[in-house]
Amino acid sequence: MNRYTFAAGERLVSPAYVRQGCEARRTHEHLVLQLLEKGKCPEDGWDESTLELFLHELAIMDSNNFLGNCGVGEREGRVASALVARRHYRLIHGIGRSGDISAVQPKAAGSSLLNKITNSLVLDIIKLAGVPAVTNCFVVPMATGMSLTLCFLTLRHKRPKAKYIIWPRIDQKSCFKSMITAGFEPVVIENCLEGDELRTDLKAVEAKVQELGPDSVLCVHSTTSCIAPRVPDKIEELAVICANYGIPHIVNNAYGVQSSKCMHLIQQGARVGRIDAFVQSLDKNFMVPVGGAIIAGFNDSFIQEISKMYPGRASASPSLDVLITLLSLGSTGYKKLLKERKEMFSYLSNQLKKLSEAYCERVLQTPHNPISLAVTLKTLDAHHDTAVTELGSMLFTRQVSGARVVPLGFVQTMSGHTFRGFMSHANDYPCAYLNAAAAIGMKTQDVDLFIKRLDKCLKTVRKEQNKQNDVPTVDNYDKTENVAIEDTALRLDNVLLDTNQDTSS
Amino acid sequence: MNRYTFAAGERLVSPAYVRQGCEARRTHEHLVLQLLEKGKCPEDGWDESTLELFLHELAIMDSNNFLGNCGVGEREGRVASALVARRHYRLIHGIGRSGDISAVQPKAAGSSLLNKITNSLVLDIIKLAGVPAVTNCFVVPMATGMSLTLCFLTLRHKRPKAKYIIWPRIDQKSCFKSMITAGFEPVVIENCLEGDELRTDLKAVEAKVQELGPDSVLCVHSTTSCIAPRVPDKIEELAVICANYGIPHIVNNAYGVQSSKCMHLIQQGARVGRIDAFVQSLDKNFMVPVGGAIIAGFNDSFIQEISKMYPGRASASPSLDVLITLLSLGSTGYKKLLKERKEMFSYLSNQLKKLSEAYCERVLQTPHNPISLAVTLKTLDAHHDTAVTELGSMLFTRQVSGARVVPLGFVQTMSGHTFRGFMSHANDYPCAYLNAAAAIGMKTQDVDLFIKRLDKCLKTVRKEQNKQNDVPTVDNYDKTENVAIEDTALRLDNVLLDTNQDTSS
Amino acid sequence: MNRYTFAAGERLVSPAYVRQGCEARRTHEHLVLQLLEKGKCPEDGWDESTLELFLHELAIMDSNNFLGNCGVGEREGRVASALVARRHYRLIHGIGRSGDISAVQPKAAGSSLLNKITNSLVLDIIKLAGVPAVTNCFVVPMATGMSLTLCFLTLRHKRPKAKYIIWPRIDQKSCFKSMITAGFEPVVIENCLEGDELRTDLKAVEAKVQELGPDSVLCVHSTTSCIAPRVPDKIEELAVICANYGIPHIVNNAYGVQSSKCMHLIQQGARVGRIDAFVQSLDKNFMVPVGGAIIAGFNDSFIQEISKMYPGRASASPSLDVLITLLSLGSTGYKKLLKERKEMFSYLSNQLKKLSEAYCERVLQTPHNPISLAVTLKTLDAHHDTAVTELGSMLFTRQVSGARVVPLGFVQTMSGHTFRGFMSHANDYPCAYLNAAAAIGMKTQDVDLFIKRLDKCLKTVRKEQNKQNDVPTVDNYDKTENVAIEDTALRLDNVLLDTNQDTSS
Amino acid sequence: MNRYTFAAGERLVSPAYVRQGCEARRTHEHLVLQLLEKGKCPEDGWDESTLELFLHELAIMDSNNFLGNCGVGEREGRVASALVARRHYRLIHGIGRSGDISAVQPKAAGSSLLNKITNSLVLDIIKLAGVPAVTNCFVVPMATGMSLTLCFLTLRHKRPKAKYIIWPRIDQKSCFKSMITAGFEPVVIENCLEGDELRTDLKAVEAKVQELGPDSVLCVHSTTSCIAPRVPDKIEELAVICANYGIPHIVNNAYGVQSSKCMHLIQQGARVGRIDAFVQSLDKNFMVPVGGAIIAGFNDSFIQEISKMYPGRASASPSLDVLITLLSLGSTGYKKLLKERKEMFSYLSNQLKKLSEAYCERVLQTPHNPISLAVTLKTLDAHHDTAVTELGSMLFTRQVSGARVVPLGFVQTMSGHTFRGFMSHANDYPCAYLNAAAAIGMKTQDVDLFIKRLDKCLKTVRKEQNKQNDVPTVDNYDKTENVAIEDTALRLDNVLLDTNQDTSS
Repeated sequence: MNRYTFAAGERLVSPAYVRQGCEARRTHEHLVLQLLEKGKCPEDGWDESTLELFLHELAIMDSNNFLGNCGVGEREGRVASALVARRHYRLIHGIGRSGDISAVQPKAAGSSLLNKITNSLVLDIIKLAGVPAVTNCFVVPMATGMSLTLCFLTLRHKRPKAKYIIWPRIDQKSCFKSMITAGFEPVVIENCLEGDELRTDLKAVEAKVQELGPDSVLCVHSTTSCIAPRVPDKIEELAVICANYGIPHIVNNAYGVQSSKCMHLIQQGARVGRIDAFVQSLDKNFMVPVGGAIIAGFNDSFIQEISKMYPGRASASPSLDVLITLLSLGSTGYKKLLKERKEMFSYLSNQLKKLSEAYCERVLQTPHNPISLAVTLKTLDAHHDTAVTELGSMLFTRQVSGARVVPLGFVQTMSGHTFRGFMSHANDYPCAYLNAAAAIGMKTQDVDLFIKRLDKCLKTVRKEQNKQNDVPTVDNYDKTENVAIEDTALRLDNVLLDTNQDTSS
Repeated sequence: MNRYTFAAGERLVSPAYVRQGCEARRTHEHLVLQLLEKGKCPEDGWDESTLELFLHELAIMDSNNFLGNCGVGEREGRVASALVARRHYRLIHGIGRSGDISAVQPKAAGSSLLNKITNSLVLDIIKLAGVPAVTNCFVVPMATGMSLTLCFLTLRHKRPKAKYIIWPRIDQKSCFKSMITAGFEPVVIENCLEGDELRTDLKAVEAKVQELGPDSVLCVHSTTSCIAPRVPDKIEELAVICANYGIPHIVNNAYGVQSSKCMHLIQQGARVGRIDAFVQSLDKNFMVPVGGAIIAGFNDSFIQEISKMYPGRASASPSLDVLITLLSLGSTGYKKLLKERKEMFSYLSNQLKKLSEAYCERVLQTPHNPISLAVTLKTLDAHHDTAVTELGSMLFTRQVSGARVVPLGFVQTMSGHTFRGFMSHANDYPCAYLNAAAAIGMKTQDVDLFIKRLDKCLKTVRKEQNKQNDVPTVDNYDKTENVAIEDTALRLDNVLLDTNQDTSS
Repeated sequence: MNRYTFAAGERLVSPAYVRQGCEARRTHEHLVLQLLEKGKCPEDGWDESTLELFLHELAIMDSNNFLGNCGVGEREGRVASALVARRHYRLIHGIGRSGDISAVQPKAAGSSLLNKITNSLVLDIIKLAGVPAVTNCFVVPMATGMSLTLCFLTLRHKRPKAKYIIWPRIDQKSCFKSMITAGFEPVVIENCLEGDELRTDLKAVEAKVQELGPDSVLCVHSTTSCIAPRVPDKIEELAVICANYGIPHIVNNAYGVQSSKCMHLIQQGARVGRIDAFVQSLDKNFMVPVGGAIIAGFNDSFIQEISKMYPGRASASPSLDVLITLLSLGSTGYKKLLKERKEMFSYLSNQLKKLSEAYCERVLQTPHNPISLAVTLKTLDAHHDTAVTELGSMLFTRQVSGARVVPLGFVQTMSGHTFRGFMSHANDYPCAYLNAAAAIGMKTQDVDLFIKRLDKCLKTVRKEQNKQNDVPTVDNYDKTENVAIEDTALRLDNVLLDTNQDTSS
Repeated sequence: MNRYTFAAGERLVSPAYVRQGCEARRTHEHLVLQLLEKGKCPEDGWDESTLELFLHELAIMDSNNFLGNCGVGEREGRVASALVARRHYRLIHGIGRSGDISAVQPKAAGSSLLNKITNSLVLDIIKLAGVPAVTNCFVVPMATGMSLTLCFLTLRHKRPKAKYIIWPRIDQKSCFKSMITAGFEPVVIENCLEGDELRTDLKAVEAKVQELGPDSVLCVHSTTSCIAPRVPDKIEELAVICANYGIPHIVNNAYGVQSSKCMHLIQQGARVGRIDAFVQSLDKNFMVPVGGAIIAGFNDSFIQEISKMYPGRASASPSLDVLITLLSLGSTGYKKLLKERKEMFSYLSNQLKKLSEAYCERVLQTPHNPISLAVTLKTLDAHHDTAVTELGSMLFTRQVSGARVVPLGFVQTMSGHTFRGFMSHANDYPCAYLNAAAAIGMKTQDVDLFIKRLDKCLKTVRKEQNKQNDVPTVDNYDKTENVAIEDTALRLDNVLLDTNQDTSS
């Protein structure tokens, strides 16, 4: 509607009422204007009506939605299915151009705006979440691992002699593969055991740099968010080493935006040393579907180089998801989620403490890990992994997702590298354990159900252990929860490995 | 609904009618069963009701939609925005696992099924479209360029000594960058001028292989679909050279699925020689939003290696789009689109012929190019590019998208390589020209509008040329089409380059 | 977006592209402007993007969508469920006010506009469909029967002494009940048999008027669209009688908008005599969900009186449906549907002729009925209704909907009136028959499937009749059509009556 | 999905995961089963995924969604617009049949189920909200006024001699018109002033019954929910009078479901006396769009008679809305809304008290009215209505909706009846006043904004009154709220009446 259409409307219904409606329209427009002018996440979340109106407005700026358009190219944003068009709000042209994923598309002013605004909003949120020094970032429709690969591929052009990436060990396949895929040789630095925690071995890192020679090292690849008892790397100290030796530093901040501690490490690292880029998952930090990441950094031109390294256009879908999400939440809503997560972490921690004590186990002391917790499974006869394994599959069938049991001595070989004690981030961690995490969006109800089900599973496993024979007893699991009694067949299935690994990317 | 709920329903309304409804349900289920069992694109497209029911059913198999689920991991498929959840049909977990983009996710049986089925359907369609020998393929949520990069990165592990990629020249940035990003040096093979066509210089390719030594060559990177007057590479002959020298062969089949000619080249190449993988765009061939590609090949294990090379999970969005599209169309619907495209190509060709003759120009003779056409712009005083440039911007402002004008002598430097005559695929193509393509989904109306507008633009440009002074005349462009008169400012804008380049990825 | 937001957008992406998008927006706005100014159905249907944008724009003019609104009344358009809000495009306030269903709501300028525009569009379509003399109409969210009741209730206030409604018999319950509900006594005029057709007995009508006295007659209630062998009433002649005696005339034009013949009768009736209002169903004429009707007429003030008679607000849902439908189709699209229906009527007629001859039956000669056809079922031993009944239930289980078999001698009593030969519009129609209709939206495929299934059913029934014993034989029905063999239980069910009656409103 | 499709799925992805998904499906099905078996509102609200799955399942039971259906009737549920089909979840056939709005449709088992379940759920909620003695009810797609008309029309057949409806005055047009439209003469019983409250004059009612004679009285038409200072009628006592004289009793319970007091009156009335039916609005009690009502009662057969009085099918849209809403909320959710409303009433009451004292006004003492409040406007020089009027239009332009100012001495004539002091429910209420209500769904923010804006408006009006000249002063209204300064033109507009009346239905 514009002034002409409003005028026509006034002739049909009372001018006073139409004027009121016109006035109301302006408040929506005002929100859009502020967004475009400031490029910041609005404090208060937008109504669905403002949001959808905005997306419609963007869409009609794309040539595929021009009423008079005629397309004679090979990529015209035509859509065969109305369902598909609708679910993308008719934004079909994706983002970026052949030269640069951040570039503007002549055919698609709306999609281009969407891309710019999303990146701008996301930058604002990263600042707000604890890295005010960040200067540039962009959303890329690839998960964290592939985004790390893109960073490494970009560095290759700046460091043609480099062959190695120095990598404090973290037992997550996609981290490791991100380096392999990029064509580099990961140099694994084993962690130090400090108390219960597995922490960065700074001396080993520096020694390795000296041994290989800085020029042959592409970068240090460190990690913030990780599963306990591993804790975030000593980013600050690593950043200083990198600065000293002139080595790039790429931080895997997978689900670290949700934790002020992880973000603070990055902010400090950049302040006192060198961080070239830090990469975070969209889905894990912003509660959107899997498939996007943010590549961010402190040096505009390097981040642009990465964005120019992506050959061709890309899906706008992850950008659209995060845009909708941030505009719906507003910065207030997002901060509320961060606050609730922190509280949920305390709550989970306390509940696990109580439960574990009841079973003569304990929560590992990992104060540096702000998200993940680990409970020992010593009493489950860790050397015969059967009980640990069984616990894992029991939790799975009882619809506990995301918990993982870590037995001792699991060996995994990837691309020629052998990891002893795989999943535990160490060759010989002292005991088997169970992990649980308090991630963004978790609810009290999740914790309560988990504790209740874990209690029952532990009870069952104990009972079975106490018997000398192997015949499984009837599970006393509460039927009201509507979960089928775990059947023997399933236990023999190698669900274990799947369950254990399903959080590893 | 199951037999219990139907029974309950019968008590509320007449059993005869409920039974009729129950019967009707079975026909929907039967379609789903056939899809799951055969893994083929159904002949007739599905109704939206069957389609949405199927997607709902998939979604409730994912743990984030379990009513009794409790999540204690860091990736639980939680979604903050209801709009986002809905547009993804609540399929949030993406596809693949840390180890492999084709792997099954324990947390997400529904999304895993979606992934498997989509790949299976797409394989079926590739066979149907002209490559019956294909044995494996997968959808990857990255555009063609990045997918080619992934292929090159995979080959690196098999050919550690290789540094070069032999590449018959095609002036499209993302093709070139796909090699640069992967860290290889493109060896550009200039095309031969045969009649009006630019064709593969097979001798130069073979000479270069011998000169560099087969081991130092990662692969030959050839192209099917391209913009006239370049025509598809001689895939068959290149495949034979690759087989003879033991060199991998990756084919960029960007928008070639829509052309039986391009597909036939690949089928033949694989039969008589060597093709390791061929990569095609989802959006350009299946009328879905930008952002996905299909990597396909004739050797199961190599295609699996590529899929294992992608580190981490990935967006399911492109898979979902192509699944919805293919199920909606059915193979009959897709074949109809292919047939219509062919007819539209003839129609466009004829109309352009008539128009160009009226202006003393001609359509270049490029019989090997089944999709793209070129019309000379000789009379526009090609050596003063102004007129050519102006034509480009005039078409742009008149909502003609996808047409591009190619002036003479444009020089472009990318990553240290200088291309003379950029956009024309040759250092010195004899004349400037204008491109138009008949791509899938084009309508008669597109052609008619294009011809009409081109006619007007040419008329205007001519008129201006005939004047000695530079004062722009009033454009006689038909106002009823609702397009603003092109203003001078815009002309000075470098819209030209944008317009020219906007089809280049 | 307005000029400020566009300006902000230009700073983010290239001004030339934003300007192009801005230009494109204007073409959408132009369509809206034309709609508001002219109040006519656009010739060409609108794109979904224009349509949804328009509905969004209307919605934000309603106070429940004002961002700064505070509501302190008891009806504030609050919505508990987001699903509900979305499916109504956030247009919550309904239409009309306590005083008048066509009145403007101060709280809801958008909904008020929607109401006005819909009525205006619908008026335009009625003119186009064959009643150019119509002067006013409005959509009412009640089906045809209740809308007729509203007309009768309005007339009561003008004719306080009237007790009777003169009604040429049509065997459709809701027509009869519309008078009963309004509190009047229907005076049934039996039809005359002319050839195969049942036609209005004009003499009986006039005689009845004279007998009862014009003042005691509320109105004549005639019908256009009806099921063969009844044909549309002689509207013209009835209109003349009404004019002569000063009696109002209400026409039930239930699904007559789709037939130029029915519409022509009304146009002529109003020209030469008296028609006060004619009522038509939304769903049957415009392919929208059940639940709305249009009350139209030739005298502005009487139509307004009816609209003022509806006490309170009303659902906007039927108005919204027909608005979306007409804007999507455009007048061209609607006319195309009308043309196709006519063709389908010929096709159905021919196919039925062929089939009936094969079974020694015939299509009844009902040239005045432009929509419905009847095929005799003489050979099915009409006096033992079992076979006729069985045919009905067989068609039902084979997913033939809308066909109905009419046995002889069915007696029905409603509100104290007894109808002999109910469903056949006559006390003693000469034979049993089967009805089928060619209504708007019917496809060739419907006809073909129907003929095929009817053929099979007739074959089966014949076979059974030829046997002397009652044991049902195995049905030779083609299994590939996925319809279960009719079971005996179902036959004993009184599906028959349901099947027969399900087209009767 | 059924066991066959699950089995096929197991072959594609791991059986353990598919089994998990299959298990999860059962929990959704279990909810549906419970709903169908018990017919009660579930305690906990359903997830959107369960809800949409359920609606899809219903839809595919309707013949218009049968994949093999062929339709040869004139009403086949065909839909021209995909947007329309989708927004109705493809439930197109509406509810009811020609004979009865509660009847089952052979063509539409799904829609029929929807209708039955909705009525059953709504009955459950009415019990829960305070009328446990209710025995039957149905949703009708007409607003309260027209639904009351339907009740009166039904009674006509039982009481052929009756001409009058006895109606304790309530100044709401649609209540009055509901009787006029039905063709009866309302006998207005003026209210008694008891303190500030306007209450039922029982003696006058009984006297009028005796005067007219019980047989000539169709029914007593009483009201619960109403705008202060009128309070709910003395339902109990009226019910006793009705029982004594054998007169039917219809209660207008428009927005009374949300108040336990109103509901209690009905429950008690039915216990000690006679209530034939009570009618309530869907939108005002269940936060759905305008357009539906519930007709409920204590005598099964009378409620069925009403439902059989509706001639023809009807829109399913209001039923669908309330079904979605109740399943989303669950009974817990609905009870929470009721509780919050009560709290909001106290809050509004307190805030108004404070504000009114500051302006030397007072909140009228109306303890029997549980929803609506009134604040005197004595100081606004009530005899010159200008200031009162101006206050009304100021509130309107400041986006306060639902507040209404009631000046003294307004006269309104409807259908020949003249009401003095219209809007105030009395000929001579002692003072002008302003109304505000705490209705279901109101938020603290509504109250706060209202109080703030009312404060400013009162301040402005006072200031202007204090000036002798007529020049309007600059309004000190807070610009940050983005509401335009009220212009003089608007004031001269008769916004006043509109504002005042906009809550009157």
